[in-house]
Amino acid sequence: MTITLHHCISARSFRPLWMLEEIGLPYELRVWPFPPRVKDKRYFEHNALGTVPAFVDGALRMTESAAICQYLAQRHSPRALDVAPDEPAFGEYLNLLHFGEATLTFPQTLVLRYRRFEPDERKQPQVADDYATWFLARLRTLEPRLAANEWLCAGRFTAADVSVGYALVLAGYLDLADRFTPAVAAYGQRVQARAAYQRALAAQDRAAIEQGVPLTPAPLA
Amino acid sequence: MTITLHHCISARSFRPLWMLEEIGLPYELRVWPFPPRVKDKRYFEHNALGTVPAFVDGALRMTESAAICQYLAQRHSPRALDVAPDEPAFGEYLNLLHFGEATLTFPQTLVLRYRRFEPDERKQPQVADDYATWFLARLRTLEPRLAANEWLCAGRFTAADVSVGYALVLAGYLDLADRFTPAVAAYGQRVQARAAYQRALAAQDRAAIEQGVPLTPAPLA
Repeated sequence: MTITLHHCISARSFRPLWMLEEIGLPYELRVWPFPPRVKDKRYFEHNALGTVPAFVDGALRMTESAAICQYLAQRHSPRALDVAPDEPAFGEYLNLLHFGEATLTFPQTLVLRYRRFEPDERKQPQVADDYATWFLARLRTLEPRLAANEWLCAGRFTAADVSVGYALVLAGYLDLADRFTPAVAAYGQRVQARAAYQRALAAQDRAAIEQGVPLTPAPLA
Repeated sequence: MTITLHHCISARSFRPLWMLEEIGLPYELRVWPFPPRVKDKRYFEHNALGTVPAFVDGALRMTESAAICQYLAQRHSPRALDVAPDEPAFGEYLNLLHFGEATLTFPQTLVLRYRRFEPDERKQPQVADDYATWFLARLRTLEPRLAANEWLCAGRFTAADVSVGYALVLAGYLDLADRFTPAVAAYGQRVQARAAYQRALAAQDRAAIEQGVPLTPAPLA
């Protein structure tokens, strides 16, 4: 049974794409113009929420990018990309997985929406600034951890690094990366230097070209 | 080793409090006025993020409410409040755990902030309305599932119900509950009728009174 991932270029669905490349699993990648709920309403047949990702594995359908990373890690990379419940880092791993999305990614979507995506009469510079500040303040709390460790937890690269790492990549598109603290900035370089990250970038471009979808990254759409 | 939970009345930290009552674990509850990063800066000693919850279990510290629920379920309620990786509902469980926070709770914090917490000159009715609509549209996608099932997944009450259930409770404080679809509304009643939910309500009030903290729920602060 092949895994199918519905994706937009460099949107949150990049997280599971990157995980699939880290693991080396076969998958089918369907690329949609961003945002699919506006640009191609057939997408609602795949995900009633209208959001990406939509992830299909047999009868299972998932839509939360950090949850999909955890699922793939547990199923296909135990004690490597996944942290097992009997490892000391298990609680930290769960916390960082959620933190990458709920605390570090959602606030950035406010910056995107009210600085870039909304028509001019609905732009909200105050809200965009509020949440850029909010994001950077939360991110800064990772500085001591990342000054002392190559990866976030468990002494190895895990799905939590994919969750948080994507939030840093997104911040680059929002011109927030030049405000990173030093160890966070260096970590952002490390995650993006991974071979699997580079393969995921190449895979999304290849699929978009084959499927006739523009190569514009979702955060710049 | 006693678990300590740092909490504000009816804030997101209610999720782990409710879980602790579902499981029946002993814990110490420290109640703070909301928001602690403004009302009592000593809180930063417990959580550099300034957010609640802060959860302490021996050497482990966690700050993401849905992650704490998953941790507690896995550690103390396997195959009951937790869904194990070899159960068919494992992927759905992870998805719903994340969905309750990242998709159903964060948008409501925008409504709170820009409709209620900000001073008048910084209130943003457009943003509050945008995210009330956004929340209700995402929530509506649970209607078929909740019309057909008592609980969200695995044929039993799990930590995913605590994650999503709290989002519904929060919506009640924002006057959004009268816009719920019928099966979602009935589910909201079911989760709040649970004995453990009621015990958690009583426990937070008791602790607040003992510790001299106002009983005002965080969403109304």
